[in-house]
Amino acid sequence: MNHFLRTKIKPQGIKKGSSVKTLVETMGNSAFQGKNIALARDIWVKMLNDRTTIFFGLAGAMVPAGMRGIIAYLIKNRFIDCLVSTGANLFHDCHETLGRFHFQGSYEVDDIKLFEKGVDRIYDVFASEKEFRKADNFIKNWAKGLSIKREMTTREFLYLLGEKLSKISKVEGILTSAYKANVPIYCPAISDSSIGIALAAGRAEESNNIQFDMIKDVLETAEIASKSKSTGVIYIGGGTPKNFIQQAEVTSSIISNSISPGHKYAIQITADSPHWGGLSGCTFKEAQSWGKIAKDARSVSLHSDATIALPIIATAVADSFDLKKRKIPKFVIKKDLKINI
Amino acid sequence: MNHFLRTKIKPQGIKKGSSVKTLVETMGNSAFQGKNIALARDIWVKMLNDRTTIFFGLAGAMVPAGMRGIIAYLIKNRFIDCLVSTGANLFHDCHETLGRFHFQGSYEVDDIKLFEKGVDRIYDVFASEKEFRKADNFIKNWAKGLSIKREMTTREFLYLLGEKLSKISKVEGILTSAYKANVPIYCPAISDSSIGIALAAGRAEESNNIQFDMIKDVLETAEIASKSKSTGVIYIGGGTPKNFIQQAEVTSSIISNSISPGHKYAIQITADSPHWGGLSGCTFKEAQSWGKIAKDARSVSLHSDATIALPIIATAVADSFDLKKRKIPKFVIKKDLKINI
Amino acid sequence: MNHFLRTKIKPQGIKKGSSVKTLVETMGNSAFQGKNIALARDIWVKMLNDRTTIFFGLAGAMVPAGMRGIIAYLIKNRFIDCLVSTGANLFHDCHETLGRFHFQGSYEVDDIKLFEKGVDRIYDVFASEKEFRKADNFIKNWAKGLSIKREMTTREFLYLLGEKLSKISKVEGILTSAYKANVPIYCPAISDSSIGIALAAGRAEESNNIQFDMIKDVLETAEIASKSKSTGVIYIGGGTPKNFIQQAEVTSSIISNSISPGHKYAIQITADSPHWGGLSGCTFKEAQSWGKIAKDARSVSLHSDATIALPIIATAVADSFDLKKRKIPKFVIKKDLKINI
Amino acid sequence: MNHFLRTKIKPQGIKKGSSVKTLVETMGNSAFQGKNIALARDIWVKMLNDRTTIFFGLAGAMVPAGMRGIIAYLIKNRFIDCLVSTGANLFHDCHETLGRFHFQGSYEVDDIKLFEKGVDRIYDVFASEKEFRKADNFIKNWAKGLSIKREMTTREFLYLLGEKLSKISKVEGILTSAYKANVPIYCPAISDSSIGIALAAGRAEESNNIQFDMIKDVLETAEIASKSKSTGVIYIGGGTPKNFIQQAEVTSSIISNSISPGHKYAIQITADSPHWGGLSGCTFKEAQSWGKIAKDARSVSLHSDATIALPIIATAVADSFDLKKRKIPKFVIKKDLKINI
Repeated sequence: MNHFLRTKIKPQGIKKGSSVKTLVETMGNSAFQGKNIALARDIWVKMLNDRTTIFFGLAGAMVPAGMRGIIAYLIKNRFIDCLVSTGANLFHDCHETLGRFHFQGSYEVDDIKLFEKGVDRIYDVFASEKEFRKADNFIKNWAKGLSIKREMTTREFLYLLGEKLSKISKVEGILTSAYKANVPIYCPAISDSSIGIALAAGRAEESNNIQFDMIKDVLETAEIASKSKSTGVIYIGGGTPKNFIQQAEVTSSIISNSISPGHKYAIQITADSPHWGGLSGCTFKEAQSWGKIAKDARSVSLHSDATIALPIIATAVADSFDLKKRKIPKFVIKKDLKINI
Repeated sequence: MNHFLRTKIKPQGIKKGSSVKTLVETMGNSAFQGKNIALARDIWVKMLNDRTTIFFGLAGAMVPAGMRGIIAYLIKNRFIDCLVSTGANLFHDCHETLGRFHFQGSYEVDDIKLFEKGVDRIYDVFASEKEFRKADNFIKNWAKGLSIKREMTTREFLYLLGEKLSKISKVEGILTSAYKANVPIYCPAISDSSIGIALAAGRAEESNNIQFDMIKDVLETAEIASKSKSTGVIYIGGGTPKNFIQQAEVTSSIISNSISPGHKYAIQITADSPHWGGLSGCTFKEAQSWGKIAKDARSVSLHSDATIALPIIATAVADSFDLKKRKIPKFVIKKDLKINI
Repeated sequence: MNHFLRTKIKPQGIKKGSSVKTLVETMGNSAFQGKNIALARDIWVKMLNDRTTIFFGLAGAMVPAGMRGIIAYLIKNRFIDCLVSTGANLFHDCHETLGRFHFQGSYEVDDIKLFEKGVDRIYDVFASEKEFRKADNFIKNWAKGLSIKREMTTREFLYLLGEKLSKISKVEGILTSAYKANVPIYCPAISDSSIGIALAAGRAEESNNIQFDMIKDVLETAEIASKSKSTGVIYIGGGTPKNFIQQAEVTSSIISNSISPGHKYAIQITADSPHWGGLSGCTFKEAQSWGKIAKDARSVSLHSDATIALPIIATAVADSFDLKKRKIPKFVIKKDLKINI
Repeated sequence: MNHFLRTKIKPQGIKKGSSVKTLVETMGNSAFQGKNIALARDIWVKMLNDRTTIFFGLAGAMVPAGMRGIIAYLIKNRFIDCLVSTGANLFHDCHETLGRFHFQGSYEVDDIKLFEKGVDRIYDVFASEKEFRKADNFIKNWAKGLSIKREMTTREFLYLLGEKLSKISKVEGILTSAYKANVPIYCPAISDSSIGIALAAGRAEESNNIQFDMIKDVLETAEIASKSKSTGVIYIGGGTPKNFIQQAEVTSSIISNSISPGHKYAIQITADSPHWGGLSGCTFKEAQSWGKIAKDARSVSLHSDATIALPIIATAVADSFDLKKRKIPKFVIKKDLKINI
């Protein structure tokens, strides 16, 4: 018998009333990206069953697109342990936690008219420029009052912002959930976002002189990686979050002058392709050549818009794993903002 | 109040034990392609509620990837009324109805070794070349015995093939379900597939002289379109099935020398993009300039691998519509193979 | 020394006044898809230097996008030997040979207004619906007068159409150049295009009863492949032209009950990706598992819009090869329309 | 006459011996992305003819892919005025300036073997991990000796690095050319790269305490934008460089509490698509809703791998504009590293 021809694809019809979990399991008998949906669920569950520190990289306009609740859920319930995000997603989270909204719109629209009406467009999402400026001002004014004068890691800054937001809002957002759950958030390009704009506006008024210790972010994430029994990664999109988490393995190997073990589990949900040569679309095989991903890692590159794939996979993971059984890495962020890894 | 800012995006967390239907409804409150999943469900349900003839275009290696059961379900339960397919999907359906399989494989493999082992690869699907040749032979031998000597439409040919398969197999495949449900199947590039190869092999042995009346396929589909109260289209991928269904509207308007009303409902699930200029990736807006799609059509272009999107949407449609309420177009294929539209 | 680190990438600046050939050679020292441009040139030149029959598959709206002159040039100068095309490209070629045009437009436009103004849109190309109907009528009326009553291959039909057009126009188009150069054209989905619509309109008026012998197309292309010393393929896009040329190797192996040698040289210019599982985006490695591509084939998959890549590559090939040295396969299409292979 | 049907597409054959400039002009008569190549050339030339400050955003592994020479040329000859780059491209530039190389490889390779051989892969580019560590060490050791103890902008840091490299190498790289030409370079995610890793390794050894003033980067780029008569942008890929340049307009409007005029000219070369909702693939129309791009801006989104499009466009621009005529914005970086805008 031909050993290439062992696992039959099982075409299945529609089962009325199916749960998401059942559907994902059925997809596991198919092929192409549908099969990868099931594989992503499987690998995520494996991470949770292992003593794994789970890094989550968040790029793309996921919060405007309505993914905030899911990410907050993942943080709160410790399906993930460390978040690396673009600044924009955190700004938009802040905007929503302050009680404002993003709106369903259309990409077929007159953008000049939108500009005149003070409406900002993110593909088919609309938002109020005026309300965004209120969030800018909130950040600017809060930063004004920050008593810490030394350089801060983005993790410290975002922890304090999460603390502040927790005091004024009951809504479970990303920053507030992370604050409560002791999940560190890093933002390697924080100045490249409305958070950066807000702080720059404050600096222009001489109301703050926030300085970020960007290199300490690098050291801390390398330390988290090196002190973990094993690490797993989940990437929504590519960008700086993916690269930053990938490089944590390399950094820790360089600092310790040892061979990088690489991340042991790896999931990416991407709309990019490998053949353009960039890091956002590159495969985990390529990452193995660098030692960023372990030789024997379990990995899947899932090609899909995350607004489709993330809700499905996250729901199926929540239905497939009993959280009580998880051995959560116990980061504690202390009063002086130091992190106990 | 700004009328662009009316429909709030509602970020939601994970609900354990969610059904597919609930998840899709939640996606309807999001954005990007996730929202389009919900929109596709909505439009499909609208078609079913209206007196609409639903054309379904099937391209891409969907049967090898395990979608055969879903498509058979859609036919059998008349969620669709007329199928236009690539030849390959019908050949692979035939292969499975004959009791053979496709297998889960990997795209990271030595293809020269596969060739030596007689294994054909379709991305991450494996199949036995030897078994494919058995399906070739089945078609060749069956065609040898066909008594009809005149040119046949592909619809007639595929009806007879479905009839034959129904006699020897109980499995609910595409061809057999369509035969039983009086759902016509058209295949505008039938020679461009293993069905074509099988018939060519027979012709080389002078065992058949099958001739297809390709133009009559065009006329029949135009007639189906023109006699329908309204038409809706669902495209899995692009290729000849999409173009063939799109042109049905144009053909009927040319023949009747009238203005084409255009398809009234339109869904496409595609991994292609508009900016390459091809028909497979083009938008329904573009199609409106041609009169292929109605001015006031309800439409959605969903960018996703169909192996993800189709199972979700089809399950949600099945859970959202009571089939007893549907007014099914009553095509009848008569003894002389003529179709009563 | 590490044998993986042998061929240096040579970053080069801009050389003012560079020829296309020089630029392509410079690209050969780079990476990603830029390198593939140079590789495509190299492989094409190798085909021309070998005793190779060159199949050219043409999909996507290449004629509306202005690629007609280049394809006519390739045919006329025998840079290619056999064309397999979508029907649309041949219809649009006919439209231009009849003295009409496609126009530069925009994809950001009101398509309802275009419809009302009788303008058809193909991404950023506009054309007159009325003028298209004139081309429809031309084909319909010409078909009416065709004296051949037997089933024709699409090759015969398109040869006669090229002959007709050559008589009424001096313009060097695809059909006319192919007619003059004895380059056969096959169109496996001919009914799926405005040619099909035109013939259907004629059939509705009972002015023609054109029947295509689709299976003979399959046999002829298999024969061309099997009688050639070696074969090479160049694909612009995927679709039926790619599949049809790929299957020629399989068909000839099935008919002769031998192992397929596979195409020896292979170039594809595609905007599709392998990970969606379809044939249009699949790699030549995958094709090797089927025996469609030779084990030791020279091949390149170039990811680019063909409107960029084709003009560059074709120009560089024309500047890199002396056509006088080519051993052209001498297909002759005889008076009775038979082809002497 | 129909005003939609004015500009004829002119299909042209191959002209032997064509220059790149001629080819690009011919593409200007075509459609799809080919036409956009010509449009990008036109807009770039318009920028150069106007009193425009040209920002250039550089993302994707462009230096490993051999684009370094072109970018250095653009800087040196002031085809661009301000560079915003990923850290990786600057690290790889440094690596090459130090006399080492990237190598042509393949993406079909055993990555575990590469890892064992100390070879890092970037799609089809190979490089020596050992040599990369030498570049790491170079940066680490150089940073050790830096006398500036205050927080630095990335612009200051990269200027000093360019100065250092200029002293030890004659090669015209990106950092060295920018140093000599007074072209500021910003790197909003500098820690997210091997530069960040190198500085982190130094910090771990307590040999440096480099602190970046990320917010001052934001302020400076906003000031460059606001003091310019007009601004133009050219994006290779998306990522932080694109967003950072886009937000410069927003920042300056917020700081000055005025309405943003938006960038007046805009070119992007991207392999991403708008329908995934992210900033990397978004259109310039979308950017107009935010005021990032001017209402009446001349813009083009070109979908292509930059390793194809950039060499063509840059060559055609160099052949279409007499640099002597350019009014270059006179940034001067002074001894104290302040920038005179």
